[in-house]
This record gives sequence, C-alpha cells and structure tokens, in this order.
Amino acid sequence: MEANRLRTIAAAVKIDRVMDRLGLLAKQAASSSGGVTRLAFSPQEREAMDLVVNWMEQAGLTVSYDALGNMFGTNDGNAPDGRPVMAGSHLDTVPGGGAYDGTLGVVGAIEAVEVMKAADFRPSSPVEIVVWRCEEAARFGQGRIGSLYHTGELTMENLRRLETAEVHLDSYLREAAGLPQRAPQRKASGYLELHIEQGRRLEAAATPIGVVTAIPGATRWRITVTGRADHSGATPMGLRRDALAAAAEVILAAERVGMEERSHEIVATAVNTQCRPGAWNVVPGWAEVWTDIRGIEQKSIDRALDTLRQITAIVARQRGVEIEIQEVTRGKPVQLNEAVLHQVEEAARGLNLRTSRLPSGAGHDAQTVAPYVPTGMIFIPSIGGISHAPEERSHPQDILAGVQVLAGTWAALASVE
Amino acid sequence: MEANRLRTIAAAVKIDRVMDRLGLLAKQAASSSGGVTRLAFSPQEREAMDLVVNWMEQAGLTVSYDALGNMFGTNDGNAPDGRPVMAGSHLDTVPGGGAYDGTLGVVGAIEAVEVMKAADFRPSSPVEIVVWRCEEAARFGQGRIGSLYHTGELTMENLRRLETAEVHLDSYLREAAGLPQRAPQRKASGYLELHIEQGRRLEAAATPIGVVTAIPGATRWRITVTGRADHSGATPMGLRRDALAAAAEVILAAERVGMEERSHEIVATAVNTQCRPGAWNVVPGWAEVWTDIRGIEQKSIDRALDTLRQITAIVARQRGVEIEIQEVTRGKPVQLNEAVLHQVEEAARGLNLRTSRLPSGAGHDAQTVAPYVPTGMIFIPSIGGISHAPEERSHPQDILAGVQVLAGTWAALASVE
Repeated sequence: MEANRLRTIAAAVKIDRVMDRLGLLAKQAASSSGGVTRLAFSPQEREAMDLVVNWMEQAGLTVSYDALGNMFGTNDGNAPDGRPVMAGSHLDTVPGGGAYDGTLGVVGAIEAVEVMKAADFRPSSPVEIVVWRCEEAARFGQGRIGSLYHTGELTMENLRRLETAEVHLDSYLREAAGLPQRAPQRKASGYLELHIEQGRRLEAAATPIGVVTAIPGATRWRITVTGRADHSGATPMGLRRDALAAAAEVILAAERVGMEERSHEIVATAVNTQCRPGAWNVVPGWAEVWTDIRGIEQKSIDRALDTLRQITAIVARQRGVEIEIQEVTRGKPVQLNEAVLHQVEEAARGLNLRTSRLPSGAGHDAQTVAPYVPTGMIFIPSIGGISHAPEERSHPQDILAGVQVLAGTWAALASVE
Repeated sequence: MEANRLRTIAAAVKIDRVMDRLGLLAKQAASSSGGVTRLAFSPQEREAMDLVVNWMEQAGLTVSYDALGNMFGTNDGNAPDGRPVMAGSHLDTVPGGGAYDGTLGVVGAIEAVEVMKAADFRPSSPVEIVVWRCEEAARFGQGRIGSLYHTGELTMENLRRLETAEVHLDSYLREAAGLPQRAPQRKASGYLELHIEQGRRLEAAATPIGVVTAIPGATRWRITVTGRADHSGATPMGLRRDALAAAAEVILAAERVGMEERSHEIVATAVNTQCRPGAWNVVPGWAEVWTDIRGIEQKSIDRALDTLRQITAIVARQRGVEIEIQEVTRGKPVQLNEAVLHQVEEAARGLNLRTSRLPSGAGHDAQTVAPYVPTGMIFIPSIGGISHAPEERSHPQDILAGVQVLAGTWAALASVE
C-alpha cells in the first residue's frame, strides 16, 4: 500500500471514539463484584451487540447473522460477489473479566472501517466485521464456540452436548433465526484479529505491536497417583507409599519440562492439585495433579509430553505408587499466515511502529479460522500482563497504534484482492 | 518375679475369652458402613462400658468413676491404703475404626486380673483398671480427653471450649455424677497400657512384643504460599511466581527432613495440600501445605523443624513468593519409664517371647500419664500395619503373648510396691 495513503488512514483514527466505546461496553456490563461480566448468550451480551449494531450501521455496514448468532457487518463496496476480508473478535467475557479482551478487536475493526471511509479509501474487496459468540470457555467449558461452528468443526449436535442445566440454546437460536441471515456460502479471503496480549512480553520489550506467529494447542492431563494411606506417626519414612510426595515430584517435573523447552516457546504448568484423605495423621494415599502444556512447535510439544510421561513412570517405580495419566484435551498448535504477518509488519513499519514476532499464549478465534483462511493477529501490550481480571488495562497510545496497524493491514489486504 | 509364678500366671490366660470379648465389643458397635463406630460419649460407648462393668465385677473389681466418666475397676486386696498399679486403655473408636485399638488394652487388663486371681497371686499393692474416655480426636478435634482431665492438664472449663453444636457434655456429666465416685486423691504408682502397634515394624521384624520407649509429640504447620495468578498460556516460564510449584518443593522438603532424621525416629509428612484457583488456564497464585512432624528426641525434632523452615525461606526467595508458617500444634515427646520397660522385657524373657524396643507412632493415653506416673506400653504386631480401619487385625497368638506379658509385668510391679 502506498505510504501516504497508509498514513492518511492511520491519521484518521479517533482514539477518543475508540476509548469511549470500550468504556461504554465496560460500563454496560459492569459487575457489582468488580470487572466486566458479559457471558456468552446472556442479556448483557445481546445488549452489547445492539450497541455494536448501531456503530456498525453508522460505519455503513450491513448487519447479518448465522444460525448460531455470530454477527457480521459487511460493506461489499464495489465487489458484491467478491470474497470479503474479515476482521473481528468477540464481546463475551469471563465472570469478572476485563474491558479489552475481545472488545478491542470489535471496536477496533469498526474504527478501521470508519477511517477507511474517512480517508476515502475504496477497497477492491468487501470488508466484513465478525463478532464471534462464546469465545470464552466460561459458559460451556469449551471456548471458541462461534468460530468453531462457523468453520463446521462444531456442529449444532456437538453443541447440544455441551448444554448444561443453566445454559440452554433454544431461545438464542430462535432469536438468531429471526434476524437477517448472512449468505452461508460466503468464504473470506483473509481474517485479522486485534487483541490484547494478555502476557508481559511486549511490555517487557517496550514494543507496541506484536505480530502473532502461532497459537499454541493446550494438552491437558489429569494425573492421578495411588499410593497407600498410612498412619503418619506410626509409619517409618522408608515404609511409605506417599501419593502426595509423588504428586509433588510430578508438579515439579511439569515445570521442569517447560523450562527445558522454553526456547521453543513451551509453557508447562501444574494448574491444580488435591489429595486424600488430607487428615493430620494420615500419609496421603491418593493425589491428583492437573497439567496444562502448550507450545507452537509440535516436536517440542511431543518432547515435553514424552519427558513428563517418562518422569511419572520413574516416580511411580521408585516410590511404589501407581500413576495414571488421563488426557483431557490434546490441542494442535496453529501457525498463522506468513503473508498476512508480513502485511502487518509492513503497515507497522510504514507508521514507524516497532514490532515483535511472538506466539500467542492464550487461545483465540483466529486459531479456529487459520486452517481455512489466511489469518493474522495483532497484539498490543497488556499492562502488567494482567487479563481475565478487573485490572486488565492497555495504554491508549498502544490501543491507537493497534487500531492504526489493523486499519492499514486490512486496507492493504482488501486492495490486493 | 519368680519364674514359675510368672509362667503360672501366663498359662492361666484364656485366649478364647479374650477373643470372644473383643468380638462382642466389635459386634456391639458394628457400623453399617463397615468397621466399628463407637464414638466417645455415645450410647454405643455407654453400652460397651456396661459390658466391661460386668466383666470387671466378675473379676472381683469394684467399679467407680470420676466426674468426667473415666471408669475404674479396683481390687485393693490387702492394701486398702496402698497406691494402685494401673493398667488400661479406651473403648472409643474413630468412625469406621477397628476392633482392637483401645479395646485390647481394656479386655487384656481384665484378663490379667482374672489370671492373677486364677494363679492365686495376691499383689501387695492394689491393682486398678482404667477405661479412659475420648482417647480419639474424632469427637472434639482433640484426643486423650479423659487422661488429660485425670492429670489436671485439661480442666472442665477447657473442655467446654471444645464442645460443638453436636457434642454437649451436660448429659454425660449428669450421668457420671450419679455413679459411684473414685476417691480423687488416689495416686497410682505405675501405669501399663497394652495396645496394637498400628504400624509395621513388629510385623517386619517378626517380633511379638514391642517395648515402647517413647511417644512422639506432633508439630503441625499450615504453610501458605502466595505467588501470583497468571495466564498459564501467556506467561513464559521465567516470568512466573507459581505458588503450586513452590508448594511442591515444600512437600518434598518435609519428606527430606524426615529422611535425614530417620535414624532419630523422626517421621515428617506433608499430609494435605490445596491450591487456588485450580483452573486449567491459570498458574496457581496461592497454595497451602499441611505438615506433621513427629519425633521422640527434642534435638532431632528441632533440627527437622529448623531445616524445613530454612528450606521454605530459600524457596520463597528463589521463587519470589511469600511463604507463611502457622504453627497449629507443638507437641513434646514423652519418654516412658526405663524401670517399667525393663520389667516388660523381664516378663517377656521369662516367657521366651522376643521383644523389640520401639517408639510409638501414634499418640496414646500413656503419654498423658507418663509425666506423672512411671509408665510402660506394650505393643503387639498389627497385620499389615493397618489401623483406624475395618481391616485392623492382629494374630490371636500375638494377642495372647501381649496379655501374658501385661499380666506378668503388672503382677511384678504390684508385688514390688
């Protein structure tokens, strides 16, 4: 994209409007116990979507929905039959979450459409904003429901199985059925998502723009240790089969495999533990450890998992306990599109903004879309790395930079097509 | 004691009567969910005491009580003003406990009185059986209530503070007040307790008689670790303050100090742990470990506690977490009386029974009595070391040996006075 045009588009970003809208969304679902609570398929989410509908219509977009209620705002421009370049994110939050997770990608995309219009930029492809439903796992115990439904990886039948006593889908689906439907055959040619980092790497590197290279897959194990419950006073040290001591070795082994593979961007965490009976005078006979291991290189992930499995086997043998590994999830890492990443870096360079390539830590809708559509993600720094909490913040100048780079990249992709 | 007399007394033990009585007591309070449930101050305990009253009266003993309801069975013989030599144990159990913990010491003592009578042995001191109330901590969260009351270490006022919504004392105290009272000024000159080992050491050594040298004091710590909750995907390994990994080091450190001091009969156990928030995508920000450290040598206990404290400080510094230690209990080890132990060994030798000196693992009423009265404990092997469980068992030949040694030792002590 021509340098002047890029700068014109970037200069048109109204950071006050972006901050006001993010503020409105935070206030609209402010939780009495702190932070923002806007669960997927809740009245708060619908209310937020209504705000977004207004903003999208003001930006000249036509609003439509799919059967699950994912929301789209489309400007076909001069190419009603063209393949849209999409950008978006989600509005739902965890309970007591922050003001920027998801909302930044939605509000930023609306602002990007506004500034393309303000800069009199006419894309050669349609541009389309998407608001995914239920990105957070807080509602169904599984996240990215909307994008998984969109790609066909999660059918309505699968979704029914995730329903709980509290969360039924019927009323939401009836509601979605009464709304304008998006042509389902419409395939995007690109997808962009602007998001807060939710980590500390950009802040530590004093870099405003993160170019996301990959999104990790999480492999989650429930590791149970069965030893023998004994009287803690009457059983000499050498005659024990202490399940908790074995579990402690597993906890530290998980950390160690993460440290060993850290140069490959692995993170390995023992996220939970418990033991039984947990009484003052009993050597624990049973313990459990939950591990969450994520990486972006399959070989490194496999090495970490193999090593952890081997260590548990050694611990079991040495301590005379049984250790069983139940795999709860095995996620695959997703690489984002090199050409799109390059466009993000070009846009940042044209605006004199420093970039760092980095993997995402958390999961995002972009990882669902990436196998089907050339996808890029733009991160901006999270203050203190804090997210999923009321204290989730980003500096306005970083938000401005993120929206500018989103707008520039999106315009470039939509003019290439 | 003369060898022939000892053998005559031992030969008079009727093992069938002992096993029958233990069986009756087990049946009388058999729990529908398995094992024996005879909580202190329950109707089941009163019923068992009624059985024991009958057996004590058959053995020629006069039954009396103190204000808490500890029960005594006394034969003053030729010395109505003499200081009695006592033997006994308790009848209360944990919920779903075994048939021998406590009951063996009571039934065994009654049998010992029977055989002294059958062997026409007339002690020069009074002999007195004591049935302590509430030895188990199951009812009030503190054990050895009856013996602590007896020695004056626990006043009725202290005891009131231990009362719960479910367990009031008034009806029991009224009941005890209506019963024959034991002369409170009567001080014993010795105390013997026959008990199952509740561990595996005698079984492993194939030794029928354990001569208990000391009863450990338990020091219990609640150790809390405060780190920082972070996104487990987005927080690189090097930027974490993982409370659970720190807790795992504390768990293993507790085990290590136990191993280092094992030659001094220390046992050190991490008996419980938990962490928060315990969610799949969060590095735990808080964790807790409970440790129970017991020993019989104060210097070794102090070394173990100091070392564990030092290690927690190192872990806190290295990991950038806060670790706080709250001392829940600090128990002192109690040494049993060497002269009494020697009498136990003499009796066993006279009956050609092998003995091992060993510390107790669990707490017992003997440890309350020992600072005031020369005290000895006799252990017999527990099959598989199992106790406080329906599977609690001991071989009848070991029970026989235990009762024989109790009777022989008791007779010897009562003829020395």
